[in-house]
Amino acid sequence: MGGDHGPPVVLPACLGFLETHPQAELLLVGTAESLKAAAGWPRCTLVTATEIVAMDDPVEVALRRKKDSSMRVALSQLKRRDGVAAADVCVSAGNTGALMALARYLLKTLEGIDRPAIASVFPNQAGRFTTMLDLGANVDCSAEHLLQFAVMGSALVAAVEQLPEPSVGLLNIGSEVIKGSDTIKRAGDLLRAASAGGHLNFYGNVEGNDIFKGTVDVVVCDGFVGNVALKTSEGLASAMSSFIREEFTRHWWTKLIALAAMPVLQRFRARVDPRGYNGAALLGLQGLVFKSHGSADAYAFGRALSRAHDAARNRLLEQVHARIVDTLQSMPVQPRTDEAELPVRPAA
Amino acid sequence: MGGDHGPPVVLPACLGFLETHPQAELLLVGTAESLKAAAGWPRCTLVTATEIVAMDDPVEVALRRKKDSSMRVALSQLKRRDGVAAADVCVSAGNTGALMALARYLLKTLEGIDRPAIASVFPNQAGRFTTMLDLGANVDCSAEHLLQFAVMGSALVAAVEQLPEPSVGLLNIGSEVIKGSDTIKRAGDLLRAASAGGHLNFYGNVEGNDIFKGTVDVVVCDGFVGNVALKTSEGLASAMSSFIREEFTRHWWTKLIALAAMPVLQRFRARVDPRGYNGAALLGLQGLVFKSHGSADAYAFGRALSRAHDAARNRLLEQVHARIVDTLQSMPVQPRTDEAELPVRPAA
Repeated sequence: MGGDHGPPVVLPACLGFLETHPQAELLLVGTAESLKAAAGWPRCTLVTATEIVAMDDPVEVALRRKKDSSMRVALSQLKRRDGVAAADVCVSAGNTGALMALARYLLKTLEGIDRPAIASVFPNQAGRFTTMLDLGANVDCSAEHLLQFAVMGSALVAAVEQLPEPSVGLLNIGSEVIKGSDTIKRAGDLLRAASAGGHLNFYGNVEGNDIFKGTVDVVVCDGFVGNVALKTSEGLASAMSSFIREEFTRHWWTKLIALAAMPVLQRFRARVDPRGYNGAALLGLQGLVFKSHGSADAYAFGRALSRAHDAARNRLLEQVHARIVDTLQSMPVQPRTDEAELPVRPAA
Repeated sequence: MGGDHGPPVVLPACLGFLETHPQAELLLVGTAESLKAAAGWPRCTLVTATEIVAMDDPVEVALRRKKDSSMRVALSQLKRRDGVAAADVCVSAGNTGALMALARYLLKTLEGIDRPAIASVFPNQAGRFTTMLDLGANVDCSAEHLLQFAVMGSALVAAVEQLPEPSVGLLNIGSEVIKGSDTIKRAGDLLRAASAGGHLNFYGNVEGNDIFKGTVDVVVCDGFVGNVALKTSEGLASAMSSFIREEFTRHWWTKLIALAAMPVLQRFRARVDPRGYNGAALLGLQGLVFKSHGSADAYAFGRALSRAHDAARNRLLEQVHARIVDTLQSMPVQPRTDEAELPVRPAA
């Protein structure tokens, strides 16, 4: 039901997903009215809910008032009863803040994780992807949180990209270890210790330009910085695309050239098209949750379904858990201090 | 003497600047050897120094050991003796950390300003420029510092872009006032108060994508976030340019199309070329200092000279000072707590 478009985008994407993933089974959660169109689909179970979390609902409304929202019902499918859950992964295009808060409330965080984080990928010049987290779930992070993000990000890349020892960079304003705030310097110490113990492949500090260079597989930062970097990138990509369009439509003869260059420009567009990378992982929960961009169209939502399916098939949850146990048991114990704090809402 | 290339880039840029700015006078500071090539230039005074601050010199070396460095001698030209200074503005492509530290030590900050900030411009989709600060001088900023940055950024835009009441946005991870860290929320309160008093044109919170949309004239943030946003933008612009190049050079026929599209692609390149926007202002000092990118070529360094010249001619220093007095006298007094802290080195 979520996202800017709701069922008109989600339903065609789901049908396409079922066709391209013949082993997959879908639990489709929504209002009875909206699910009518999906009646009789193969490998698709319809689960009805009576309420909807609106894109601008405050977190409190989603948590305390709308007890039968489609978002809540969908997340509940991940809860294990006698060790078995109805679903392996949940995908939503809805209100991010509400999704994070409900997921945290219903599923709880994994042992050893204080705060869940949002992770997504950026295409890089090395022809691969850079996974970055946190992209907006946590505005203030301690050094310990950044270490946890590094562990979770490594598990994500290992599971989804089949890279057993992904390299991790700490986002900073210089490559030298003396750079950055006290929190960043302490995080560097923790990451170096984890790396020395063989629990992580820590590269060192990286800078903003390294995200797109492909210097490392995983870039770790707090949610404020990550969200600014994400949205700055979206804004610049959109500005550059519109600059190209403007230049190619300036005169009749530039339009002719654009016509000739169309196949090349389309290949370029496909490479930087954020729809192709849709589907951010909410990591650190006792259940797999993926968030689609709210503005996703059917193609983009299909990509999010696909990423979520890959993560579930590759047992991301077990991998995250195993890495956390491995890494964090070797580190000095940290008190959990911030359980009561609610996450903020990042990208719409 | 500074930058990745030194005199071979700086000297041609200076000669070009003298030709295009017939009213300008230049004090050229460097080693006697390197200045030989400029002997006899019109409106150009040669000032010799015996030492050079290297690009990787620690701040302490620049401050305490190299007492006759070209950087230090150049900055000294801004010091007023009996109300008169030898130069109105200083431009350097050297070590940013050393430049900031030396400038702060030699010139001192303006009254009411705790910490200088680095400001630069980004082209936006509205066809104008977005000025952003701080871009890396201060890793941790209080709400009061962010207010001071807003005042200084407004003065810069008013002086250089001839916009009397530039709009100011506070960089955050959502547009609502309840978003962000405690520091950001307090900064929002201070900015709203200053705006209500008619001292600032505060728009409200902005997000990363607003930098390139052109939502506001000035974007204010702490130096960590600003530096990440700057370098992420540089990295993405470079990646997108290389993606375009790769697509146009993939086959013989795409190369033919590229040949036809060359004039259009060049216009596009000129628009996103960071060399055209070279020249960051170090604001908040009792003297005007501009920093060129270390990797600048002669064209880019010439742009920095030009921007610096414009700022001096438009009396930026007096404007910043007048705005600070106007705004900060109306605000509750804040203690100066961090004078001893050295700035960090941002972009190389």
